[in-house]
Amino acid sequence: MSLRERLQARLDSKAKPIGSLGRIESLAVQLGMIQGTLAPRVVDPVVLVFAGDHGAAAAVSAYPSAVTAAMVGAYLGGRAAVNLFAAQAGARLVVVDAGVAADLPAHARLVDAKVRAGTRDWRDGAAMRVAELDLAMQRAAAVVDGLADGGCTVLALGEMGIGNTASAALLVHKVAGLGLDALTGRGAGLDDAGLERKRAAIAAGAARTAVRLTAREALAEYGGFEVAMLAAAILRGAERRTCVVIDGVIVTAAAVLAHAMQPECLACCVFAHRSSDAAHGAMLAHLGAEPLLDLGMRLGEGTGAALALPLLRAASAVLSDMADLRDLVA
Amino acid sequence: MSLRERLQARLDSKAKPIGSLGRIESLAVQLGMIQGTLAPRVVDPVVLVFAGDHGAAAAVSAYPSAVTAAMVGAYLGGRAAVNLFAAQAGARLVVVDAGVAADLPAHARLVDAKVRAGTRDWRDGAAMRVAELDLAMQRAAAVVDGLADGGCTVLALGEMGIGNTASAALLVHKVAGLGLDALTGRGAGLDDAGLERKRAAIAAGAARTAVRLTAREALAEYGGFEVAMLAAAILRGAERRTCVVIDGVIVTAAAVLAHAMQPECLACCVFAHRSSDAAHGAMLAHLGAEPLLDLGMRLGEGTGAALALPLLRAASAVLSDMADLRDLVA
Repeated sequence: MSLRERLQARLDSKAKPIGSLGRIESLAVQLGMIQGTLAPRVVDPVVLVFAGDHGAAAAVSAYPSAVTAAMVGAYLGGRAAVNLFAAQAGARLVVVDAGVAADLPAHARLVDAKVRAGTRDWRDGAAMRVAELDLAMQRAAAVVDGLADGGCTVLALGEMGIGNTASAALLVHKVAGLGLDALTGRGAGLDDAGLERKRAAIAAGAARTAVRLTAREALAEYGGFEVAMLAAAILRGAERRTCVVIDGVIVTAAAVLAHAMQPECLACCVFAHRSSDAAHGAMLAHLGAEPLLDLGMRLGEGTGAALALPLLRAASAVLSDMADLRDLVA
Repeated sequence: MSLRERLQARLDSKAKPIGSLGRIESLAVQLGMIQGTLAPRVVDPVVLVFAGDHGAAAAVSAYPSAVTAAMVGAYLGGRAAVNLFAAQAGARLVVVDAGVAADLPAHARLVDAKVRAGTRDWRDGAAMRVAELDLAMQRAAAVVDGLADGGCTVLALGEMGIGNTASAALLVHKVAGLGLDALTGRGAGLDDAGLERKRAAIAAGAARTAVRLTAREALAEYGGFEVAMLAAAILRGAERRTCVVIDGVIVTAAAVLAHAMQPECLACCVFAHRSSDAAHGAMLAHLGAEPLLDLGMRLGEGTGAALALPLLRAASAVLSDMADLRDLVA
């Protein structure tokens, strides 16, 4: 029997009607396949948040770039939503400065991987140089290696970057060919006029380059550093056979890029939460992904990924700890 | 300002875009309203599982009645699905023998509230006497009082009882007037022939009494002891201002009865999980309830309710622990 068949047989031997735990069972099979075992474990789960700024932010966001650094400060202070959700899930939070446009303090929870103080404005030219893209992806892979070497088996990915939903729309449009209309939402809360401005900026930015780009080309053109690092983290996480938990719009855009570079990486990805931002639905449909949760959230930060961690623990426990039917009879 | 308005204002002052935590925010408001505070807490959450047997079980279930006692044994042994899910959510499990048709061992996790060793067969006559119904409801209320007196603020309800989906269909049909077809599912796993047998038994049982019954009349006619106790636990839990987390088909049927007896009790109910059993959808629509989770599960035991507990913790933390926007600016 294949490992998948043995995992299914093990689930079917548990003290419950066949299939009665629904998606917890398919999640259990996926975890077993990722870890290559009949008894997967959630060990040292980490919520890994990449932060970066965007040269085009003023044209596409309701908030100023300074909010990125302020929110990183909140993550380090320990009282942002993602801190609370991670703590409840028994996960630690690690924040990576991918390219925040401010000097950040040294902090035990902060990894300084800053490539540059924000991307260049993609309305005028490429957001980053190819060497900067390479550096960003290498540094993210190194962070993932460090966590995996330390025993982490689950990486829940999050992000912070004022302006990054516009980058995400451009990236997915250029790489996957989805229409910009379906990919452009209100981000953190644009009004109608702001949304029109965002659409116009994105259209202008899109017109600057070829109709289709590779994932690397698109990242260099439109950024951001945090999205490049997320894509690299997904790829390296999958190589290391960690379970990679995908949050909302931005992390899913990174998953679209990672999938374009290495389709098999999706086998290690668990989609956590369906964002209320309509752009997310288009990206999920492209990947054939159905998130575990649908709670109407659109905060980012990794909050959706953190809320899915208890479901991963439940799935691993069903395989690893639950009684068998024959235990009952005995 | 009303408490509801003050809760909303507090949420809107938090370090996040307005409304960006979706249903976690509405859950936070509900918790605040239940506890009468701007800073609700999840303290000593208990997964409370009521177990009972049914005289009509052989006619309506794929499993023999003996499975009820065997599963109670599994809950006491600590390795059933609900044990694992409760433990991960930081909740303790309490099992109540409402009317199991077997002698159960004394155990620290087991409350002996047995009214009778199973209900009478509702095909032949009333499942229980009115005095037995009263006793069941009194004993359940006393269990809830004991937990609430001890400081428990969240009760996650579950159940075990071979044959109880047939009782649930009859109860909701008689009390809420929903059609039997929509209320009759495969339970723990009937095949087509079994489902036909179940439908025939239910139709015969339904024909024995008046078209509409009160909740108490219906409980006496169709049982079970565990459903009567669940209805009483919902009512007393709401009186004590505990948050009552509603699991799947059976607990929702009990909520339909509790709602018929005391409509305001729903304000304290959180619907946890949408069962893959189609009967659940009809009951939820009747109550206007939209569960938090939809994971394709249909196990019962309180597994859905236990999986929703982390969302309650997240909601309370947003109100009680999350940074304000003004903390960021400072």
